Amino acid sequence: MRLQRPLPPGSTIGILGSGQLGRMTALAAARLGLGCHIYAPERNSPAFQVAAAHTVSTYDDLAALARFARTVDVVTYEFENVPAATAAFFEGKVALAPGARALAVAQDRVDEKSFIASLGITVAPFAAVTDEENLAMAVAKLGRPAILKTRRLGYDGKGQVKIDTATDLAAAFAAIGKAPAILEGYVSFDKEISVIAARGWDGEVAVYDVPENVHRHHILHTSTVPARISAAITEEARELGRRIAAALDYVGVIGVEMFVGAQGLLVNEFAPRVHNSGHWTMDACLVSQFEQHVRAICGWPLGDPSRHSDAVMTNLLGDDAALWARLAAEPYAGLHLYGKTEARPGRKMGHINRLTPRQG
Amino acid sequence: MRLQRPLPPGSTIGILGSGQLGRMTALAAARLGLGCHIYAPERNSPAFQVAAAHTVSTYDDLAALARFARTVDVVTYEFENVPAATAAFFEGKVALAPGARALAVAQDRVDEKSFIASLGITVAPFAAVTDEENLAMAVAKLGRPAILKTRRLGYDGKGQVKIDTATDLAAAFAAIGKAPAILEGYVSFDKEISVIAARGWDGEVAVYDVPENVHRHHILHTSTVPARISAAITEEARELGRRIAAALDYVGVIGVEMFVGAQGLLVNEFAPRVHNSGHWTMDACLVSQFEQHVRAICGWPLGDPSRHSDAVMTNLLGDDAALWARLAAEPYAGLHLYGKTEARPGRKMGHINRLTPRQG
Repeated sequence: MRLQRPLPPGSTIGILGSGQLGRMTALAAARLGLGCHIYAPERNSPAFQVAAAHTVSTYDDLAALARFARTVDVVTYEFENVPAATAAFFEGKVALAPGARALAVAQDRVDEKSFIASLGITVAPFAAVTDEENLAMAVAKLGRPAILKTRRLGYDGKGQVKIDTATDLAAAFAAIGKAPAILEGYVSFDKEISVIAARGWDGEVAVYDVPENVHRHHILHTSTVPARISAAITEEARELGRRIAAALDYVGVIGVEMFVGAQGLLVNEFAPRVHNSGHWTMDACLVSQFEQHVRAICGWPLGDPSRHSDAVMTNLLGDDAALWARLAAEPYAGLHLYGKTEARPGRKMGHINRLTPRQG
Repeated sequence: MRLQRPLPPGSTIGILGSGQLGRMTALAAARLGLGCHIYAPERNSPAFQVAAAHTVSTYDDLAALARFARTVDVVTYEFENVPAATAAFFEGKVALAPGARALAVAQDRVDEKSFIASLGITVAPFAAVTDEENLAMAVAKLGRPAILKTRRLGYDGKGQVKIDTATDLAAAFAAIGKAPAILEGYVSFDKEISVIAARGWDGEVAVYDVPENVHRHHILHTSTVPARISAAITEEARELGRRIAAALDYVGVIGVEMFVGAQGLLVNEFAPRVHNSGHWTMDACLVSQFEQHVRAICGWPLGDPSRHSDAVMTNLLGDDAALWARLAAEPYAGLHLYGKTEARPGRKMGHINRLTPRQG
């Protein structure tokens, strides 16, 4: 259901998921006098530490979800794998933003690519894969190399395998658990960029400047604004973000990942949530993507997305965060640590935004 | 006692007091991966909503204070009227910053002015008052108009009375409850400014740019940076802040209020805590006064206090905050609301930082 009225200060946002994205959303909500109730299965979560209320339970615990729904004025989420049944549960009880449709589309790579293509936006060539037989046909059609990914639940490079000249298709399909899959044709590109856009209940849209993203081992390493792309490509990317958000009747912040190549812009995927490649907005903009998300879902006016500085955001993974004392001593850098106690390799522990005053 | 080592992320800051200053300190601590335990007598306090732990008890509850002390790695406070016995209680148990001496000096207006004057810094002429007789002598010496203030526990214009040409001294003394008092001679000045400085355990000092402050009904109305004062006065003010902090062996953020007049700079008072006139740092600097305080008391490197924008901070009192929707729609303004449910007249409900890009 839609929000019935703008939520005044003192209202409570329900957040499904308790990682760093939920934590930073709760901190942004607090700045505006809004409270948060975090719901997640994991104990000792980063977001619990900064919210007045939390519930530890599974996403299929309908009794706990019902209690949660009664204490909050709007529900949002910090990860795209909220079960569809959980999202459906809130229907008629409390506003959910982004809505169930955005969530459903984002959860299935075939639906997602089909949806984006249906808007006349270029995506990588792709084919649905259900068994070894149509995997072979898809590879024959799209060529090698290609990427085989599960349709659902993959992130940060998990649930995917590259199909190279010598790759055995049966082994590849087995490697992803023989799950329903998508084969994506190989696309050569020069740069990865993303668009962080926010859309309100009234259709108002605000789009941040476009960062250029570098991944390492399938995990975001840096986001740099401005991206080294032309003004025309920048504006086209922002416009694609606006179109996708509008077509989904989206409410909240959306992150749309794109490739820039010789053939122009190509949309890779979108995340129906605040996005790692938007963390630079915490220090380079007056209104961060987290505050923007809160404003959007609560029916507040969107904030000015302009930035006052150039920025390079670098993720701190695993032991990177052990260097906190050195990082904290860097001049003109904003350091963010997520309150995670265990620093597993590759785990996102924090990030640092290195700023340079904007020129011109 | 002094901090034994820099506190790593995951450590816990104990904060005495649960108002908006504690709340914003807790939010800043969270950004650095540090937790907070808030201790205050009031239930439903703004700071409780954003901290993982809180204790509701009085400042003289030694059992509760002992439990609190065992859960935290450093203790700080958000108001200057922490009882001396409470501060003394922590001695030998856990580091306290700012220390008991800064607290003691700040709590007594006569001690405070005497201390500042002892550094060779100009203060308004003053005299201690204990009864009607020496009030009369003090008025004879300092002249009328003058201000009679309780030595202790006054703030935002409470506990003070102006002694004008026609004021009856007995009535004035009765009006402040015949408490031990200070008479301050009238000083003409052009501007009120303040210095927000931070000092670490190692003596490192960082000073923000100097705001110009306007009060209404004894409550801060606006702080504007830069102040309309010369570069020489700005530097002198910052130097006075440094000297006072060093003389107190201060650790944390200190707010020093000053007057600028024909005779130059005059120090009015200092607050041993983050300060309302430093709230503009939340949006105009990369490291806010709250993060700076956290860094200082936790033994972290201090952050760069430079600002990227000019700013006007305006306090939102009482019903001002009811205009949140209009305020949130202002372009390039940072809105901060404190999560207070009841909007009493004059109560600080939030503030807004209106920025303009810095020139030159």
